[in-house]
Amino acid sequence: MRTAARRDALRAAAAERGLDAVLVTNLLNVRYLTGFTGSNGALLVRTDGADLFGTDGRYTTQAGVQVPDVELLVDRGTVPALARAAVRRGVGRLGFESHDLTVDGLGQLQKVLEDAASGGTVPELASIRRAVEDQRAIKDDDEIDALRRACAVADQALAELAAEGALRPGRTELEVGRELDARMLTLGAEAPSFETIVAAGANSAIPHHRPDTTVLRDGDFVKLDFGATVDGYHSDMTRTVVLGQAADWQREIYELVAASQAAGRAALAVGTDVVAIDAASRDVIAAAGHGDHFPHGLGHGVGLEIHEAPGIGPLGAGRLAAGMAVTVEPGVYLPGHGGVRIEDTLVVTDDAPELLTLTSKELLVL
Amino acid sequence: MRTAARRDALRAAAAERGLDAVLVTNLLNVRYLTGFTGSNGALLVRTDGADLFGTDGRYTTQAGVQVPDVELLVDRGTVPALARAAVRRGVGRLGFESHDLTVDGLGQLQKVLEDAASGGTVPELASIRRAVEDQRAIKDDDEIDALRRACAVADQALAELAAEGALRPGRTELEVGRELDARMLTLGAEAPSFETIVAAGANSAIPHHRPDTTVLRDGDFVKLDFGATVDGYHSDMTRTVVLGQAADWQREIYELVAASQAAGRAALAVGTDVVAIDAASRDVIAAAGHGDHFPHGLGHGVGLEIHEAPGIGPLGAGRLAAGMAVTVEPGVYLPGHGGVRIEDTLVVTDDAPELLTLTSKELLVL
Repeated sequence: MRTAARRDALRAAAAERGLDAVLVTNLLNVRYLTGFTGSNGALLVRTDGADLFGTDGRYTTQAGVQVPDVELLVDRGTVPALARAAVRRGVGRLGFESHDLTVDGLGQLQKVLEDAASGGTVPELASIRRAVEDQRAIKDDDEIDALRRACAVADQALAELAAEGALRPGRTELEVGRELDARMLTLGAEAPSFETIVAAGANSAIPHHRPDTTVLRDGDFVKLDFGATVDGYHSDMTRTVVLGQAADWQREIYELVAASQAAGRAALAVGTDVVAIDAASRDVIAAAGHGDHFPHGLGHGVGLEIHEAPGIGPLGAGRLAAGMAVTVEPGVYLPGHGGVRIEDTLVVTDDAPELLTLTSKELLVL
Repeated sequence: MRTAARRDALRAAAAERGLDAVLVTNLLNVRYLTGFTGSNGALLVRTDGADLFGTDGRYTTQAGVQVPDVELLVDRGTVPALARAAVRRGVGRLGFESHDLTVDGLGQLQKVLEDAASGGTVPELASIRRAVEDQRAIKDDDEIDALRRACAVADQALAELAAEGALRPGRTELEVGRELDARMLTLGAEAPSFETIVAAGANSAIPHHRPDTTVLRDGDFVKLDFGATVDGYHSDMTRTVVLGQAADWQREIYELVAASQAAGRAALAVGTDVVAIDAASRDVIAAAGHGDHFPHGLGHGVGLEIHEAPGIGPLGAGRLAAGMAVTVEPGVYLPGHGGVRIEDTLVVTDDAPELLTLTSKELLVL
């Protein structure tokens, strides 16, 4: 199973840091390492290979199905139960996720370890920081398959919406957004990836506009930024269309953003610095005099979270590696007039990046 | 505005604990205290009344609209920025949410405070524990109104589903669940309150069954546990129906659970211990010899979270107060055969509780 390979990779990272075990508390990290989709679970990964998965009684059956290859510990208090098990099994140095565990959680963990040691050696705690998140930045085949399906749902939902004339003057942003969400659910999404953005007319110039009762009008830009969650994996896509007829200024900034987005996609190569990728796309917009109208980063990693490593922007750090799934989403926003953003989700490969969001990027006039 | 009254209540609680200010980092608590619905925000509540709301540049406009009555501080790092402001304004004792702030977050906060004090007095940090959550357990009129609307959406969605014959043999649990979710969105829900449960036949005996491709068959119990989120507030309702014709054993356990649920609702009075409320409902089931078939607590508070204080169960603690919004959801589950759960969301008042989920509790045979 893929999840066994993922646990083995964490096991190796733990051994390198001189740890006997790692207590994984972040629920998405637990899901990544075990396949468990319930709302309460924690995992003890031991360098000697004897892992332990903890959840409560509601999930006994589900854990048996989803995590058949890890010993199960059923207890209302999953973290204390795993901590006591770690002491019983002689763990000396125990890694924990300091970006996830709360201050209260650490206090409780320390107390449980001391009580369980009952005068004996208390395991020493050491943060593993974002070791699992670092691992998650590189997607394996199962993850890429889930992302592909999530992107396909979003593509199909938008195609249906456009085909049925749902994007037309007289409708409100909220109506369009809800219909898009409902279609994604009908097509098999567990949920939208995030709060769907529908921004019409001047609202399209607001990068993160929340849909409201604004009515779509003839000549409007309509910007749709949305995604579907499938098997826990998120898709992310933005398309901007025009209603009725496109004015010259609209065609102009649309073509500019499309060129910038193509340049960003072309720059997605293994080993490239994320700042250089951002620059490849941003330079196109800046050269046209619109640098100030592109006030956000170019993209971000996407997976079990809608925003995850790597960040691709002027302040980012690091290089691309094969298997990273990222967005490329430049925009030009003219306050009070309108804006365009074009966004795809892609996977970095040793060859050209694989495009997962397949909806056309030609300017669509509806 | 209601949110100003909520901040004043927290201010009083902070003053009682000898704090000069409280740094609220839990995003739902920030929403409760300010009305802000964005994904990044923190709040500094000062006992002298000069509060400060922090968010990043994406939300400048939204913050102006949603939080017009609190001074705004725009910064990518909201918590460090508020911490520096606290030092500048001479805060001596600063409360923080130790159940929300991570170990890394506390480390960063301490460092920022030390750097900002630059040799001067560093504010002393003190946990306020769940002070805001305790406040949130008692709903004000705006919150009850939102809960009422969230429950109405769920009622309406189920009524439409039943009227259109969507609950019929041959359909799968997943299809029914997705249609219910889509209807709630169309009716104005922001999202389902949680992953909708549709459990048919033997699956209805699993308290928290995840919908799968199981096909609904004639004679099946179909258990639907679902809710809508409206303005951030969650509704929670369970109904169990029978397809075709109800067998005697099905009528028997249905009537038993209905009687138990009525007893639980009748016990919802101000000042009653939560353990006694659970017992009022549980005793009915135990007296019929089914005590072992009711393996979970009776209910829970509901509001900005689907599960919040108070917990109503054998292991609960505390007494009901007017304004608490809670569920009452006993169940009887016969493994391998089928189960029934009946759940309402209600508000505790000085008189009889107000029922928010209005769908009939008569056994529905479809």
